Amino acid sequence: MSAVDQAHMARALELARKGLYSTHPNPRVGCVIVKDGQVLGEGWHVRAGEPHAEVHALRQAGEQARGATAYVTLEPCSHFGRTPPCADALVKTGVSRVVAAMQDPNPQVAGRGLLRLAEAGIEVSSGVLEAEARELNVGFIKRMECGLPFVRVKLAMSLDGRTAMASGESQWITGPAARRAVQRLRARSSVVLSGADTVLLDDARLTVRPDELGLDTEQTALAAARQPLRVLVDGHLRVPLDAPFYRAGPVLVASCAAREGFAADGRELLVVPGSDGHVDLPQLLAELGRRGVNEVLVEAGPRLAGAFARQGLVDEYQIFVAPKLLGSSARPLLELPLEKMAEARELRILDIRAVGDDWLVTARPA
Amino acid sequence: MSAVDQAHMARALELARKGLYSTHPNPRVGCVIVKDGQVLGEGWHVRAGEPHAEVHALRQAGEQARGATAYVTLEPCSHFGRTPPCADALVKTGVSRVVAAMQDPNPQVAGRGLLRLAEAGIEVSSGVLEAEARELNVGFIKRMECGLPFVRVKLAMSLDGRTAMASGESQWITGPAARRAVQRLRARSSVVLSGADTVLLDDARLTVRPDELGLDTEQTALAAARQPLRVLVDGHLRVPLDAPFYRAGPVLVASCAAREGFAADGRELLVVPGSDGHVDLPQLLAELGRRGVNEVLVEAGPRLAGAFARQGLVDEYQIFVAPKLLGSSARPLLELPLEKMAEARELRILDIRAVGDDWLVTARPA
Repeated sequence: MSAVDQAHMARALELARKGLYSTHPNPRVGCVIVKDGQVLGEGWHVRAGEPHAEVHALRQAGEQARGATAYVTLEPCSHFGRTPPCADALVKTGVSRVVAAMQDPNPQVAGRGLLRLAEAGIEVSSGVLEAEARELNVGFIKRMECGLPFVRVKLAMSLDGRTAMASGESQWITGPAARRAVQRLRARSSVVLSGADTVLLDDARLTVRPDELGLDTEQTALAAARQPLRVLVDGHLRVPLDAPFYRAGPVLVASCAAREGFAADGRELLVVPGSDGHVDLPQLLAELGRRGVNEVLVEAGPRLAGAFARQGLVDEYQIFVAPKLLGSSARPLLELPLEKMAEARELRILDIRAVGDDWLVTARPA
Repeated sequence: MSAVDQAHMARALELARKGLYSTHPNPRVGCVIVKDGQVLGEGWHVRAGEPHAEVHALRQAGEQARGATAYVTLEPCSHFGRTPPCADALVKTGVSRVVAAMQDPNPQVAGRGLLRLAEAGIEVSSGVLEAEARELNVGFIKRMECGLPFVRVKLAMSLDGRTAMASGESQWITGPAARRAVQRLRARSSVVLSGADTVLLDDARLTVRPDELGLDTEQTALAAARQPLRVLVDGHLRVPLDAPFYRAGPVLVASCAAREGFAADGRELLVVPGSDGHVDLPQLLAELGRRGVNEVLVEAGPRLAGAFARQGLVDEYQIFVAPKLLGSSARPLLELPLEKMAEARELRILDIRAVGDDWLVTARPA
């Protein structure tokens, strides 16, 4: 794996990232066509149903693609989906080498696209900047590998780990930059999931507000064109149908029991009762996986977020930390009662960065 | 202020930092003598009673100092202390220019050293890398300016702001790198202050263990030669005299009442009763200031550390954050009961850095 290969793949990943807000349920993919050190074509997948990254890049390169190297952030597809297989397109244009960042994550097809290329006499390799490529499609990959979406839990707390005063007084712990970052987390997700407590208490809508994303015009337009599906966990259908949350667009409601006449006006009811009187969260996630959901953003209070944590369903925490102390009577980050040190949940902190006056900690279960 | 001046001052600050563990109760000071772009002498203050930084640097430069520029991280002294005034030494050797990072922080003498130099025909200036210079002697400066030491509170918590399980089970939340960092915090302090809870519960000694500092040989030796004074806040003298804490060396005990025969074997009793049945912390700090204490490291449990926070006596928090969740039943960071959001303590986060697998947050009241 040469430095030149890495540089071209880094550019392909940069292109792929342009699809962060729009490719759902497809993965974000970028492609660069290079010959004699010269970039002949660049492409990225914009949205489902439209051409794949390879097709855009090959079109740009035209006749010159013959004998070139194609860098692609995901193994080219070898099956007919909504578009014809990219492996065939690459063979047809006569590229002589294909470098992939990673194989197709679906274990049942992994390697077939590359095999098809190799059988056509094309030199193939895989694994260049693989970690970065996997990170970019962490949700798509998890769904391909085990049928479940990647669950990202967003929390906002004071430096001493508190989310609200004991009285419930809470809003605006973090500043405007953190709120923009939350908007971007929503926009990249397939689903934004919340609970009745949050929706009732904060009159939350949990929609993407394009003007608050802080993105450039192109990315803002792509994000604006696709609202993530909002999922409400409301076991006993406590949220009234005239709540701002319902008025703001389609909702999938997960509850413990059916209710006649509920499903209408963009409301869909999913009955997934658990044995404990609460919604069965694993069952809900499995259903979301079947529906092509890659990334779920959980924006909920300590009770529901705590339930995800207690059941080991969290893949990543994104914790916004405000530089203040709310004190020892204030509410906890998560309802997560543990008795012994040995029960402590070990995490791996991937990143801590300043977001305005606040800080964002990204952590995953160790 | 030229880039050349800044570069030489940066070197002087680097030299000054070598005294981090040894100059108490004096400030850390470094000096560089430069002529025609060539460094002729370097010096730093090692410990009280020994020559100041300027003297070391001038000795190294010798005759060549005539016509040179002296960079010094603190205004040269103009009074006779345990050593003669450095301003006189600079005049005598015939340097033609003196650049100071900052004036003497004592408002009653600030500028006198520079004035003396200017009167002798030397070109003087001040304010080069002043912020860095002030930071290096943050405790000395606070004591000079208001008679009180700088209070640094060290805490260790989980990512969700907890210090121990409800049962009290607690030790070793953070890893070995964090423990070495705590050793260095102790070693740089004039005083390490703790409470009866901590000393009784953890059998804590709160001494500097030189082999755990993780420093080079020279710095380790300097740190080993000076144990910070240990101060125990024990309002009702609950800690038995045969506790490991007492056996580990001299202790100043702050309590609410005198006890006959207590003061012996390196134990000194300071009676500073507060109106609430607890030790009067402001009175204790004032006494420490009078004794030349620059930096106090508070290593205490949530009760005593919380008392410092509640009374607004904390200048800096150093919070070690372990990448784990201890859950919502676990003990709080500080006993700091607040009712309203408006009472929240606003902080400014100066720095967050990785320390082994843990993270260290440095924050000060906003």
